[in-house]
This record gives sequence, structure tokens and C-alpha cells, in this order.
Amino acid sequence: MAAIKVHGSPLSTATQRVLVSLHEKELEFVFVNINMGVGEHKKEPFISLNPFGQVPALEHGDLKLFESRAITQYIAHENHEKGTQLLCQGKQMAIVSVWMEVEAQQFEPAASKLNWEIFFKPLFGLTTDAAAVEENEAKLAKVLDVYESRLAQSKYLAGDSFTLADMHHLPNLHLLFVTQSKKLIESRPHVSAWAADITARPAWAKVLAMQKN
Amino acid sequence: MAAIKVHGSPLSTATQRVLVSLHEKELEFVFVNINMGVGEHKKEPFISLNPFGQVPALEHGDLKLFESRAITQYIAHENHEKGTQLLCQGKQMAIVSVWMEVEAQQFEPAASKLNWEIFFKPLFGLTTDAAAVEENEAKLAKVLDVYESRLAQSKYLAGDSFTLADMHHLPNLHLLFVTQSKKLIESRPHVSAWAADITARPAWAKVLAMQKN
Ligand SMILES: N[C@@H](CCC(=O)N[C@@H](CS)C(=O)NCC(=O)O)C(=O)O
Ligand SMILES: N[C@@H](CCC(=O)N[C@@H](CS)C(=O)NCC(=O)O)C(=O)O
Repeated sequence: MAAIKVHGSPLSTATQRVLVSLHEKELEFVFVNINMGVGEHKKEPFISLNPFGQVPALEHGDLKLFESRAITQYIAHENHEKGTQLLCQGKQMAIVSVWMEVEAQQFEPAASKLNWEIFFKPLFGLTTDAAAVEENEAKLAKVLDVYESRLAQSKYLAGDSFTLADMHHLPNLHLLFVTQSKKLIESRPHVSAWAADITARPAWAKVLAMQKN
Repeated sequence: MAAIKVHGSPLSTATQRVLVSLHEKELEFVFVNINMGVGEHKKEPFISLNPFGQVPALEHGDLKLFESRAITQYIAHENHEKGTQLLCQGKQMAIVSVWMEVEAQQFEPAASKLNWEIFFKPLFGLTTDAAAVEENEAKLAKVLDVYESRLAQSKYLAGDSFTLADMHHLPNLHLLFVTQSKKLIESRPHVSAWAADITARPAWAKVLAMQKN
């Protein structure tokens, strides 16, 4: 079996989404660090792996993939017998798909803008835009109201077990906790319990440990 | 077999994405019109089908789904032996997933903003924001440059056959053609041939015919 190679940056949320799936599946892989500070993601050889010039990308033998959520689905399908079961069968898989779309379409746009404004901009010496924070906190609050009702009915978004739908939230959820926007999570008891549960997974701890190397 | 019920609006691009999948699969279904003009999508009974208050939603027996791309994947998986084959097997399915993500993450954000500014705003008596048009035309041009190289190598985005990855583009692609932004398509020969091919599919004509009722 050819080695799995992940090209990305340990600080990139999209890269982390792929890394956590590999750790959940207990797979070995080679990590190729892309130095975004010097623009390696916009040049060859990376641009041949992802013509959009964004991390992450994955190589597995001849197969070259990009877009983090396409990669996690590939990992979960190809390795369904290993590690954590991240998918479901039949009609229940349709529910996992719904909540994967909710993460990508509803949660991420607001959460990633908040993380950009509050966490990343100051790191890069840029000024946080207070109006953008207010607007996206209002958006995220509405999304999390729906999550609160959902998680009052089932422990995880797609039902009783942890799936890709929950897992895809980890990178942005983790960053929200180190910003003022954590209040949006802490004020909702079911969202708060779910966030505590999934951020405590050993696979996620392994992703965070990679940032320290 | 319980009837498939689609709740939505024939003018909504997300609803159209679901409708075209049903027509490609030659499935019968009941269409429940949601009058967005009077806010039916924000009230019961619709809000119990999609707590985010957006069309479309699907009911199939006990199963209730929302998010257009989750619904099309359900339709394609459950009916793989009927109508057009919209999925692939194994590693080739990973390539379909990559290009489905590209549609959702790269193409749609720019295309839907252009369609909003240029097509829908004037319909609602609102003023088009020229700066937003310029910004999103520049974004879409970059995305379509990648499509142009891709479609020089294969007839469709995920390979030699039409899949969900192409199909998901239809609603926004169709609207772009009735705006000034069609120049972005027409100036790229492979994108232009691909757009002509997929918008000429009989299943898409059936979706457009529904707007006339
Ligand atoms: N939808 C893509 C997003 C990838 C993405 O935005 N990556 C960021 C880092 S987290 C990046 O490469 N940004 C640089 C750029 O967009 O130029 C995915 O999920 O993989
Ligand atoms: N990501 C959703 C988007 C659905 C969506 O935005 N629907 C629009 C009509 S095309 C809508 O209901 N808009 C009303 C609103 O957002 O309040 C999907 O693909 O189903």
C-alpha cells in the first residue's frame, strides 16, 4: 500500500480537518509542511496538487485529492474497517450528509470569519473589524440555536454516534474557544457539552500536538 | 414505496439543484410550493422540515432531509440503478467528491453573489452594487481559469461522464448566462462547451419548464 502524504500547514483549519480524520482512523501518514509564509501554496510543486492554491492536498499512490471535506470522506470510506467508524449506512448516511452540509454551509462561514477577525488578524498585525464581528456573531448565534435544539435530541449531530459531521467542526470550534465568541457556545448547554466532548477526543489532541513541532 | 415530496420554490437555485437530480433519475415526485414572498419558509410547517428556514427540503416516508447537496446525494445513492448514473465507484468517487466541493466552496460563493447583484436585485427593485460585481467577477474568473484547464483534459469535471459534480452547477450557471457575467464563460472555450453541453440536458429543460406553471 502506498504511503498517504498530506501536504499542508499545522495551523490551517482545513489541514487540521484532514489530520484529525487520519488520527481517528489510526492511519500512518507522511506530513509535508507547506510554508504559506513564503507562498509555497501558490507555486509548483504544490499548485499541481491543488490548482486553487490552498492547503491541504493529499496524495495516495496515483490519487491526488484536495478540498478537506472530500479528503476526509475518502479516508473514511477507504478505511471503514479501521479506527473510529465515521460514517453510517443507508438512510442514516443521508442524515450525516445533511449535517456535513450544515457545517460547510451554515457553521463555517460565520465561525471562520470570526476566527479570522478575532484570532488571526491580530497575529498578523491587522486590526479586527468590530462590525464584521458583530454581524458574524449574530449569524453564528442563530446557527447555534438550531444546534442547541438538535443536540437536545441526540448526543451528536447525526445521531447517537460521533461522525464526520461532528468531526468537521473541530478546527473552527477549537479556535472559537480562544476568542470572545466562546460565549456563544458556553451559553448553550447542549452545544457546550457536545463541544467539550468532541474537543476532548484523543485524535484531536494529536492534531494540536503537531502544532508544537 | 412512499412518495418523494420536494418542498421549495421553482425560482430558488437550491431547489432547482434537487429538481434536476430527480429528473435525471426519472423519478416521480410531489412538488410542494413554498411561497417565500409571504415567508412560508420561516414558519411552520416548513420550519420543522428545515430548522434553518431555507428551501428546499425533502420528505421520503419518515426521512426528512434538507441542504440541496445532501438531498441530491441521497437521491443518487438510493436510485443508482435508475436514469443517469450520477456517481462513480471507489477512487473515482473521490474525484467526484473533490469537484462537488469545488462547486460548493469555490464556484458557488462568487456565482451566487453575481446572480444576486445582477439578476435578483433589480427584480426586487434593489440597486446593484458595482463594487461587489467587480470583486466577484474577478473571483469567478480565477475559478473558471482552473475549470478551463481541467475541462481541456476531460469532458466533465470528474472525468469522461456527467456526474453530480457537473449537475450541481446548473442553477447558477443558467443564471450567469442571463447576466453580463456570461462573458466569463464565453471567453473560455472548454468552459463554454461544457456549459452548453450540461445546460442542454433534457432534465434541466424539465426544471425550467416548472418555472412556467
Ligand atoms: N475549502 C477548502 C479551503 C482551504 C483553505 O481555505 N485553506 C486555507 C488555509 S486554512 C488556505 O490555503 N488559504 C490560502 C489561500 O486561500 O490563498 C478546503 O476545505 O480544503
Ligand atoms: N445551502 C442551502 C442553501 C439554501 C438556500 O439558500 N435557499 C434559499 C433559496 S435559493 C433560501 O431559502 N433563502 C431564504 C433565506 O435564506 O432566508 C442548500 O443548498 O439547500
